[in-house]
Amino acid sequence: MPTRPHAISLSVLESQYRIDRFNAAYGTALDAGDYEAWIALFTPDCLYKVIPRENHDAGLPLATMALEGEGMLKDRVYGITNTLFHAPYYQRHVIGAALVLSDDGETVEATANYAVFRTKPGAASEVYNVGRYIDRFILGPQGLRLQQRLCVFDSELVLNSLIYPI
Amino acid sequence: MPTRPHAISLSVLESQYRIDRFNAAYGTALDAGDYEAWIALFTPDCLYKVIPRENHDAGLPLATMALEGEGMLKDRVYGITNTLFHAPYYQRHVIGAALVLSDDGETVEATANYAVFRTKPGAASEVYNVGRYIDRFILGPQGLRLQQRLCVFDSELVLNSLIYPI
Amino acid sequence: MPTRPHAISLSVLESQYRIDRFNAAYGTALDAGDYEAWIALFTPDCLYKVIPRENHDAGLPLATMALEGEGMLKDRVYGITNTLFHAPYYQRHVIGAALVLSDDGETVEATANYAVFRTKPGAASEVYNVGRYIDRFILGPQGLRLQQRLCVFDSELVLNSLIYPI
Repeated sequence: MPTRPHAISLSVLESQYRIDRFNAAYGTALDAGDYEAWIALFTPDCLYKVIPRENHDAGLPLATMALEGEGMLKDRVYGITNTLFHAPYYQRHVIGAALVLSDDGETVEATANYAVFRTKPGAASEVYNVGRYIDRFILGPQGLRLQQRLCVFDSELVLNSLIYPI
Repeated sequence: MPTRPHAISLSVLESQYRIDRFNAAYGTALDAGDYEAWIALFTPDCLYKVIPRENHDAGLPLATMALEGEGMLKDRVYGITNTLFHAPYYQRHVIGAALVLSDDGETVEATANYAVFRTKPGAASEVYNVGRYIDRFILGPQGLRLQQRLCVFDSELVLNSLIYPI
Repeated sequence: MPTRPHAISLSVLESQYRIDRFNAAYGTALDAGDYEAWIALFTPDCLYKVIPRENHDAGLPLATMALEGEGMLKDRVYGITNTLFHAPYYQRHVIGAALVLSDDGETVEATANYAVFRTKPGAASEVYNVGRYIDRFILGPQGLRLQQRLCVFDSELVLNSLIYPI
C-alpha cells in the first residue's frame, strides 16, 4: 500500500479514540453517580482540581475543589454519599473531542471542552459549569488513567453549591 | 508490523466512527426538520422512547413519547407536519462521543450523552432537554439502523410542549 | 487480511479525525482569545460568516458578521483587541462530531453542530449561540485550512453584542 499524502498513523487514531472514550466513560460514571467507577479512572497519585479560570490564568492556587491522591478522592466520595448535607441534583456531561497536546506512548497530555448541565428536582435543566479539562493521562496495563485533571471553569462565581465532581 | 502494546483493533475504531457519524446524522436530520431522513435511521421493528430519568431508573413505564415500529414513527411525523397545533421552535443537538457497551459485529449497544437546545421565534436559545441515549443498533447492508433508542432525560418536569423527537 | 464486511477505509477514519481535531483546535483558540491561532486556521481567500438560520434558509444575505479574506479577519481581530469598546466575556465551545458530506482528498465539505456558552464577569455561564458550522476545508501541506465557514445560528435575535467570532 503506497503511503497516502497526509497519512495519519494508526497510533494517533488509537490515542484519540482512547481519550474520547475515556471522557465518555468519565461523564457516564459521574452522571450515574457511580463514584467507585469515577475513582477507578485515576492513578493512586492523582491530582484533581476544579478551579476558576481567573485563578488558573493568574497562577493563583485557590480552587473550588482540590483532591490529591486516591485517598482524598475516596474521602470526598464518602462525604458525598454519607455525610454531606445537600440538596441532590442531576448532572449531565457533554464533552467535546479531546485535543491531544503530547503523547510519548506512556504519558498523554490533552485538553477537552466540557459543559455540565444541572437538573434540580422539579426544575428545568440548566447550564451549570462550562470549561475545559487540562489532563495528564498515564497509559498502563489497564488502559488510560488520569494522573492529573484540572477542571478550569469559566464562571467567576464561586459555586458554593458544588457537591459532585465535574 | 509488530503489534503495538495496547493496540486497538481497526474494527473497534470503525465501530466508534460509525456510531458517532450516525449520531451526527441523526441530530442533523432532526434539527433540519427532515423527518423522512429521521425515520430512515430506524429499523422497521424499532422502539423509540423519550422517558424521564426518574421513571427509567425506577423501572416505571410512563414515557413522554413512545413509538413502536416504523408505522408509529410515520404517524408521529404526520402529526408534526400536518395536524398538531403547536408553536414551532428550532432544535439543536450537541451529542457527545458514544460509549460502545457491546458489539458482536451485527448488534451494537451504546450510549451517548446529548444536549438539545431550543430556540423559539424571537427568543434566545435555551437548554431544552439533556440526557443520554441508550441504544441498540443493527448493522445491516445499508449501515447502522436503530432498533431501539431510549432518550432518558434528566428533568422531572413533564415536557407538555414536547413536539419533535429528541 | 480478508476484507471485513462493512469495512471503512482508513482514509475515511483519517478524514474524520482531522476535522474533529481541527474543530477542537478552533474552539480552543477562540476560547483562549488566541486570535492569531484562529486566523491561521483559514486560507488567505477564506469566507467567514455568522448568519441567522432564518436568513440562511431564505437565501437572504444579511449576516451578523461577514469577513472575506485573511485581511478582513486581521482587521476584525485588530478591532477586538485594540479599538472596539466592549464589555469582555468568556466563550466556551462544545462542538459535536463533524458530518463529512464530501471529500475528494483535497477539498472536504462538512458540517458540525456547536454550542457556545458565554460567561460575563461576575455572572453565571449561559447559552449564548447554538447552530451549525457549514464548512469547506482545503487539505494542504500544513493540514486542513478553512476556505469557508458559515456559522448558521438558531436564534433570530440579532446579537448586537456579538464581539468575538463564533
